[in-house]
Formats: sequence, structure tokens, C-alpha cells
Amino acid sequence: MKDHPMSNIKIDEARLWDSLMTHAKIGGTPDGGICRQALTDEDRAGRDLFCQWCRDAGLEISIDKVGNIFAIRPGLDNTLDPVAFGSHLDTQPTGGKFDGILGVLGGLEVMRALNDANYQTRRPLLVASWTNEEGGRFPPAMLASGVYSGKFSLDYANDLTDSEGVRFGDALKDIGYVGEETVGERTFHSYLELHVEQGPVLEDESTEIGVVNGVQGMSWHKLTVKGRESHAGTTPMPSRLDAMAAANRIISVCYEQANAIVDAKATIGIIEAQPASPNVIPHTVNFTVDLRHPQDTVQQGLVRKMLDATAIESEIGFTISHEEVFRSPALHFDQGCIDIVRKVATDLGYSHRDIVSGAGHDAVYVSDVCPTGMIFVPCEDGISHNSIESITPAQARAGVEILLGAAIRLAE
Amino acid sequence: MKDHPMSNIKIDEARLWDSLMTHAKIGGTPDGGICRQALTDEDRAGRDLFCQWCRDAGLEISIDKVGNIFAIRPGLDNTLDPVAFGSHLDTQPTGGKFDGILGVLGGLEVMRALNDANYQTRRPLLVASWTNEEGGRFPPAMLASGVYSGKFSLDYANDLTDSEGVRFGDALKDIGYVGEETVGERTFHSYLELHVEQGPVLEDESTEIGVVNGVQGMSWHKLTVKGRESHAGTTPMPSRLDAMAAANRIISVCYEQANAIVDAKATIGIIEAQPASPNVIPHTVNFTVDLRHPQDTVQQGLVRKMLDATAIESEIGFTISHEEVFRSPALHFDQGCIDIVRKVATDLGYSHRDIVSGAGHDAVYVSDVCPTGMIFVPCEDGISHNSIESITPAQARAGVEILLGAAIRLAE
Repeated sequence: MKDHPMSNIKIDEARLWDSLMTHAKIGGTPDGGICRQALTDEDRAGRDLFCQWCRDAGLEISIDKVGNIFAIRPGLDNTLDPVAFGSHLDTQPTGGKFDGILGVLGGLEVMRALNDANYQTRRPLLVASWTNEEGGRFPPAMLASGVYSGKFSLDYANDLTDSEGVRFGDALKDIGYVGEETVGERTFHSYLELHVEQGPVLEDESTEIGVVNGVQGMSWHKLTVKGRESHAGTTPMPSRLDAMAAANRIISVCYEQANAIVDAKATIGIIEAQPASPNVIPHTVNFTVDLRHPQDTVQQGLVRKMLDATAIESEIGFTISHEEVFRSPALHFDQGCIDIVRKVATDLGYSHRDIVSGAGHDAVYVSDVCPTGMIFVPCEDGISHNSIESITPAQARAGVEILLGAAIRLAE
Repeated sequence: MKDHPMSNIKIDEARLWDSLMTHAKIGGTPDGGICRQALTDEDRAGRDLFCQWCRDAGLEISIDKVGNIFAIRPGLDNTLDPVAFGSHLDTQPTGGKFDGILGVLGGLEVMRALNDANYQTRRPLLVASWTNEEGGRFPPAMLASGVYSGKFSLDYANDLTDSEGVRFGDALKDIGYVGEETVGERTFHSYLELHVEQGPVLEDESTEIGVVNGVQGMSWHKLTVKGRESHAGTTPMPSRLDAMAAANRIISVCYEQANAIVDAKATIGIIEAQPASPNVIPHTVNFTVDLRHPQDTVQQGLVRKMLDATAIESEIGFTISHEEVFRSPALHFDQGCIDIVRKVATDLGYSHRDIVSGAGHDAVYVSDVCPTGMIFVPCEDGISHNSIESITPAQARAGVEILLGAAIRLAE
């Protein structure tokens, strides 16, 4: 590896931005967002344009049976596994222009910049576009990277149906993206994913690059508190079995814990009281609790404190039912990949900080099968999954420069 | 007044209970409750039977233009205003057999017992059945006692419509209960109302009679907390403007205040968060707060503490809207009536306690125009407005004995 392999390799900010803006027209909405759900006509058009651009850049394209697209730039030794990078091109129904797309088109820009500099890496490079990351039409999210890494079977994916009853397998066939390649057969030396942060941390700290250390642990809980319905006017406070009062105490504990522990998060997104009359003490309150922390032991501690709070209410006389509807353990990315991303950011003079991803990404599943790292760039007000999702051309370029630098180092 | 005017006047517990059970068949539901909303065919049938029983007892019936029924037993001096007592015969859609009905049929039993004993009071006695106390079909509640006392105009009442668009005035005409008497023209010396407590206090203390001192002050509030929607996974706790967390803090203050102050009550009956997704921090939470206390100054203190809590959230950055949708000031009944009820309970050897009504009753409005008192008897588990509302024959008799004793004393 040369001392400064990137000195003559230049990311073309205008070309990168133009590609992002051109691609954003596919499924583009009047308010500046994108509606391009997986396996729709818009998804097909987005894939087609990406493949065309890859071929224009001299990349060799292979598609696997779950529709993942791999575009390869040969290296000096093509017997070696490629260094891969990428993300996804599908969006939420009211998605923005950068979530996922920056990682794919940024990967393409890496290839184009290497072509411009006529630079040959030792290992081949590969840009991946994973099918159905969002999962809006075909839950669960991160489906096809999950099939690639062995988390889900191909049959499981193909048999999923959307809300209209359309099978995933049929929809994939309809858009012409059932490839020949056996899913998971192609192995990577390593995998990098550039993504918008989807949170406010980098922007709040005026930091250009997030060195993603991993993904926080999370679990979702559905709680139902049952007490006793009675009259708001005639029932003294000590005689009440007020389900809302009990729910409020449990919720307070969740917030207090999350506020007291650095990087912990508690969210109560859904709540409703029954029978929902202003002067009737609720007999039932249903609510959800989302608890997260970068370390599983701490995340499980949050869950335990919540359950302790429900146990106190049970002793008082409430009937509490609790269901953990979803759990994703904390993940720490490959230390080598993390260190390389951090070093490139330092070398290139970008302000950076280590950060833990609050959301899941294709990199989560890919990390099961090869050393993986992620790069975050800030997004305006931390807003994502929204038509107003916004980054600047300079922020996009910064992210791609880190991706380029890290990929070159991994490919030596 | 004789020393023991009641020694030879006997409440007939079996007759009282039989009347209650017979009348409960009108609009009776399979689960033992009554559905007899105001101005329905069932209401007409209930009125008809009551009027028939009154005529059988030799009472003279007069009906006013809002359908209130007055059944009079002459006294020794009929130039004097009558001592009145009563309640209502209409029910909630899923009402019980005693709410209101005990006060009316208990009043009839007083008349029957006096007939049996051939006892003549100095003042005439009057049993009143007020139209549309529940207000389920034609809100507001306590409508016709409100017209009687001048709180509402007759036109206001007649022009109310039910959910089907039927006018109150037309429905009253349809059931044949538009009387000749000008509403409010008939004056009372005093008014007593026997009612089930609709709360658990008497039962919890194994007390037979509640000497009602008045009605607590109450107000209903609609609050909307607006914060900022963001991602539950990517937004650190200090960066959040979580509308649910702010609502949780305001609600906690309401409960804490109500728990700390004797006889204070706080109820959050309705709550909902938007956009109602488990992993999205709510941008908006709507909830209701019902605050009550027997003393207006204390009740207003509860409201002030709630508003102080909202002001703290406003300073943090939340936008709070607050609307007081209903307010009913605290009411203290006539001290003479209160003292007589207490004395009769003591003389007859019933356990009793002073109590403040948590709910509104016709007596609230009638108290605007004449000295008024109320008598409570326990109901099982404090449950009312429910088909399982239940009292025992002995509890019914005890209440009517107090009503009889108090009426006789007031009528001397």
C-alpha cells in the first residue's frame, strides 16, 4: 500500500450529486421525496438506471436469486474476495433521497473515481444494492441482506406477501430481477456501508463523519395494564385501581432510567386508555415501550427495571400483561474496519466521532459473515424516512471520500 | 311536632322492594340492568306506572311543561309550600335499577307509609320525578331540574336534539308528558333527595347512611402537548422533544397533587399519542384531566398546579394547548337540611357519616331555589351506571326511613 494512495484519486462532488438528483427522479414525489418501495415499477426503474451506470463504468454485474445486485471492479488479484460496499435503493412510502441511496451511488462514485485515476486495487471491489431493506411493502426490514447472510431462507423471503397478497417471489420475477447467482455463495473480504445518520448527533456537534462502532441493542414491548373501571367523581384516590395511574408510573420509570444512563433510550410511541371517557377511571391502558442501549447488559437492565415497575403494580392489584414483540441484540462492528474508517477520517482532516447506530442497516446482517464497518454523514435536523430528508453535496462527498479511502486500504 | 312522630309509621320493606323490582322490568335488560333513556317509550311506560301508583296512593298529580311529575299529598295547611323529595326515573343506556329510581319510588313509599299510619303532616308533601337527569340521550344532564330552577330556559331544553336529530320538545310531546304547569312556578319549602352513593366510601366503612353535605367542585380539561416527531433509535434522550414524556410529567403532577390532598381527585380518562408507532417519538399527545375537590379553592389549586406543570413544559419548548371544557363549582347544601338528616339517622340508630357527593344530582339545581339536602345509601362495590348496580332491600329501607323522618320534621 502506497503512503498516500488517494492523493491522485478525486471524488467528483458534482458528478456524485448529479447522480443522486437524477436517480431521485425515479419515484420522486412533488414534495421532494421518493416513493420507491421494493419490487415496484419504480424500484425496477431505479435498479435499471443503476445497472446502466455500472456498465458505463465498466463494472461486471451479477444478480442473485433474491435480487441483490453486485457490480464488480476487478483488482490485481481476482482470486481474492472483493472488498464490498453498498446499501439499498428502495425507500419508505414517504422516503427521502439519501437513505440507502447515498451508500449505493456513493459506492458507484468510488468506482468512477478509481477509473478516472486509473487506479488498480489489489483485491476486486464490489458495490452491492440489497433488495428490500426498508421492508415497508414486504416486512421484515433488511430482508435480502438477511437471506445473503443466512438469517432468513430464500423460501421465507419468496413466500412473504404484501398487503394486497402479492408474493415477494412473484413481484421480484415481475420486475425481472431474479438472478442466477445462489444467494450467499459470493463471499466478501469485508463490507463497508455509507449511510445518513438518521439522527441529530453529528449535526448537533458540527461533526462531519460518524465512525460507526456498532448498532445498539433494542427491544419492543407491548404492555397492558388492567385495573378497575370506576366513577371519577365518586371514587376516592385510595380506593382506585386506576390503570392509567399505574401505566403512568411504569412509564415514568422507563423515562427516568433512560435519562439517567448515557446512551440509553426509552420511547412510548403508542398509548390508549379504555373506556376512554373523561370522567371514567380507565380499566385498561395499552402502551408500547421501545428500549435501546449500545450494550446488551445495559439494555437488558432497562427492560428489567421496567418489569420491576410492573411487578410493583401487580402487587398493588393490577393485572399486567407484557409481551416482548421484537428484540435485536447490540452489535459491535469489526474493530479493524472501525479503526480504518477512523484513520481515514483523521488523515483526510474531517472532524469525526465514534457513534453507535440507532437503527438497523444491511450492514447488521452482513457483519455476520464478514468484517464490517459503517460510515455516517449528518442529515439535516436528523430527519429521515421523510420527504424533507436532506444533506449537502459537501456532506455527501465527505462520506464518499471516507468510503473510498477505507475501501482502498482494505483492498491492499 | 310529636316527640316520636315515626313510632307508628312503618316503611314496608317488602312493598318498597317489590315496587323497585316491578318498575325495573320497564326497559329491563337481560343482564339485570335498565335501558330507559329519557323520552323513550320505556320512559313513558315508567312514568305511566309511577303515576298510576301515585293515584292509587291518593296523590294529586301535576306535570309541568318540561315533563317533571309532581305527586302531592295534602297536609293540614295546604296554603304552605310542600316539603318535596324525589329524583329521576330515566337511566343511562346501560343503567342500573336504583340510580334515581330509589329516590322516586322511595318517595312514593314515604307517602304509602304515611297513608298506612293515617298520619297527616302540617305542610303538604310532594314527590318529584325530574325529566332527563342522565342526559345520555339529550345532554346536558339534570336538564329539567335545571329548567325548574332557572339554570336553563324551556326553549333551550325543547330545542335540544338527540343523535338522530329528534327534538327534545317533540319527543316529550310524543310520549304525552308535556304538562300544563309553568316550569318553576311551583315553589317548595324544602327538597330532599335519596340516592345511591355511586361510590365505595359508605360500603368500605360499613356505614349505612351518608349525610350529604354538598357536591364537590369539578372541572374537565383537554390538553394537547406538541413536541417534535423523531426516530426512537437515533435520537438521544437530551435531543428529544418527546410529547409523551412531557404528558407523562404533567399527568404525574396531577396524580401526585390528588394523592397528597385529602378528598382531591384526578382522573386521566382519555389519552392518545400521535403518530402512534412503537419506534417514533410522538409529536403530539392529547389527554383529558378531570380534577375535583369539595372546596373550590382547593379544586382551583389542583388546576393551578396542573397549569404550572404545563408552563414548565412550555419553557422546555413544548407547545401546550389547554381548554377547560366544563366546570361545576363546589356546592354546600342547606345546613338545616343536613342537620335534620344527620339527626334522624342518629335517632333511628343507623351508622352514618357526612359525605360529599362526587357526582351531580337534580338536588344541585333545586338547591338554587330552596333549602336542600341529600341522603346516600351504599351500593355494592360503589358501582353505578352499570347493569350490575346493586343494593339490598335493607339498604333501600334504611334510606327511605331517613327520608321519611327528615320529611316529617321539615313538614311540621
